[in-house]
Amino acid sequence: MSFPPDATLADAGEFGLISELVALFPQGDHVLIGPGDDAAVLRVKSGHVVVSTDLMVEGRHFRRDWASAADVGHRAAAQNLSDINAMGGRASSLTVGLAAPADLPVQWALDFARGFAEECALVGASVVGGDVTRADQVVIAVTVLGSCTQAPVVRSGARAGDVLAICGRQGWAAGGLSVLGRGFRSPRVLVEAYRRPEPPYDAGRVAAEAGATSMIDISDGLLAEAGHLADDSGVAIDVQASAFEVPEPLQAVGAALGADPMQFILGGGDDHALLATFTGRAAVPDGWTVIGAVTEGSGVTVDGAAYEGPTGWTHF
Amino acid sequence: MSFPPDATLADAGEFGLISELVALFPQGDHVLIGPGDDAAVLRVKSGHVVVSTDLMVEGRHFRRDWASAADVGHRAAAQNLSDINAMGGRASSLTVGLAAPADLPVQWALDFARGFAEECALVGASVVGGDVTRADQVVIAVTVLGSCTQAPVVRSGARAGDVLAICGRQGWAAGGLSVLGRGFRSPRVLVEAYRRPEPPYDAGRVAAEAGATSMIDISDGLLAEAGHLADDSGVAIDVQASAFEVPEPLQAVGAALGADPMQFILGGGDDHALLATFTGRAAVPDGWTVIGAVTEGSGVTVDGAAYEGPTGWTHF
Repeated sequence: MSFPPDATLADAGEFGLISELVALFPQGDHVLIGPGDDAAVLRVKSGHVVVSTDLMVEGRHFRRDWASAADVGHRAAAQNLSDINAMGGRASSLTVGLAAPADLPVQWALDFARGFAEECALVGASVVGGDVTRADQVVIAVTVLGSCTQAPVVRSGARAGDVLAICGRQGWAAGGLSVLGRGFRSPRVLVEAYRRPEPPYDAGRVAAEAGATSMIDISDGLLAEAGHLADDSGVAIDVQASAFEVPEPLQAVGAALGADPMQFILGGGDDHALLATFTGRAAVPDGWTVIGAVTEGSGVTVDGAAYEGPTGWTHF
Repeated sequence: MSFPPDATLADAGEFGLISELVALFPQGDHVLIGPGDDAAVLRVKSGHVVVSTDLMVEGRHFRRDWASAADVGHRAAAQNLSDINAMGGRASSLTVGLAAPADLPVQWALDFARGFAEECALVGASVVGGDVTRADQVVIAVTVLGSCTQAPVVRSGARAGDVLAICGRQGWAAGGLSVLGRGFRSPRVLVEAYRRPEPPYDAGRVAAEAGATSMIDISDGLLAEAGHLADDSGVAIDVQASAFEVPEPLQAVGAALGADPMQFILGGGDDHALLATFTGRAAVPDGWTVIGAVTEGSGVTVDGAAYEGPTGWTHF
């Protein structure tokens, strides 16, 4: 089936849309029964499954005028794949629910699905099921399944004496979002970082194999996520601002907006960098940068003091 | 933490809400890591996992003035548990995403979660993860995981010569919905059937063990779902209207509304009865009723002729 360029979801109908969408999702060998039945059936060799779910709401987590449908697809997949990464695992299968207004262009849904599938292909994961229905605004619900080759790394294992390390770009997406929010489209590299985050998909497994004591992905802000590690582990975490090199585009945005570029790094999310603790500098794998220390106590400080800037994102 | 009776989600905040919700979800022995980390980790002994996902949108799939929050929770769980049932499997774990306006009462979210957990407890399944975020209307995204003790039963296995059989109430929820749509609250048994469907949770496994050749759950209407079996199997299905006893409350509603009560049975969904095919009457297990026949050809007929009434529900 193909639709005219201006066709809407209402024109396509549920089953026309589903059949077009399903065709965009190649199925891995582990998929015993793929999309189209009451449920999918997946082979699981590891004896366990790692599962996470996330919602993305139009106007809150994305805007259709700030990112293309393909970008939104990439981002929706990335933020879920990243949750498996943060356990030290690898994603294998995803389901995706799309609630959308009847006048949403079919092309938007197809481009979204194409971007989603492309991001999943980066880790070899398959989209095995989904649901589409009508709603007043676009809501995207993703669930991701995966597995670990070693013990999953939880948030609660940090101990006093550990070092805190990061892997992946941090602050770029927040810089891009800030630029978009002011009606600009450059620096392009930051805007692109917001539209299509590049989570370090292998870093979680590498960290787990290196003995990471705790790990989390930075979706809601570095200090906020460090706070989760601290709270769940019953420790204090100090982040050393001097450990970060502020990349040139963030310096430029800071200068243009009259803002401290460190606020993007410390408060920004959406890059899906990983934050982990290790027993010492010697245990930190290549590709990771030490940015702080774990001590006895509670809470998160920056250079030993409370941080006054924005520390993260809240969902209500 | 506890909230004043009129507290909203905005008052509770994301983390206050999550901590209250998580406390409502007991974790089974198969849950190695439950809610609260980047992902949950579940033990899988069967070598496979059956997975399905569904969206429910306020104003489309439920109305807050037609059903209590607990009812909506029961129904959201039931329709997903039913998808695993329809493969011949049993659900073990669910994730639930709740997108909602900031002014939604916390109590609604808690009652929803309580109803959801109660329905899951009927099959011994655990709520292992979720997400909450703000949206203009309530959208509920559920993913369910389970497993089968025998080969999953798909939609495509019906063959000419098979019989079509049903297990579970059918038409009751549609009758209840029709009553509510006209501003009435009785017959109460139908309204309750709509608010809290009672899927026959063991019937899928029983049918699979009895050698069901195809199976589907009736969420969008009996004839529509029979159509999926026919299309996917490449066969024709004839439904015999005389095989149904029209229950008294449906007769009463038909008389009151001037409608043929068979339209609730043939066109109604939401009861989550199961529809399956078997190689002959002798193969049909207890609790199932033969309601039709599979022949060569395509499409669905009623008593050998095209059906003129409403045949199901479309999502766009």
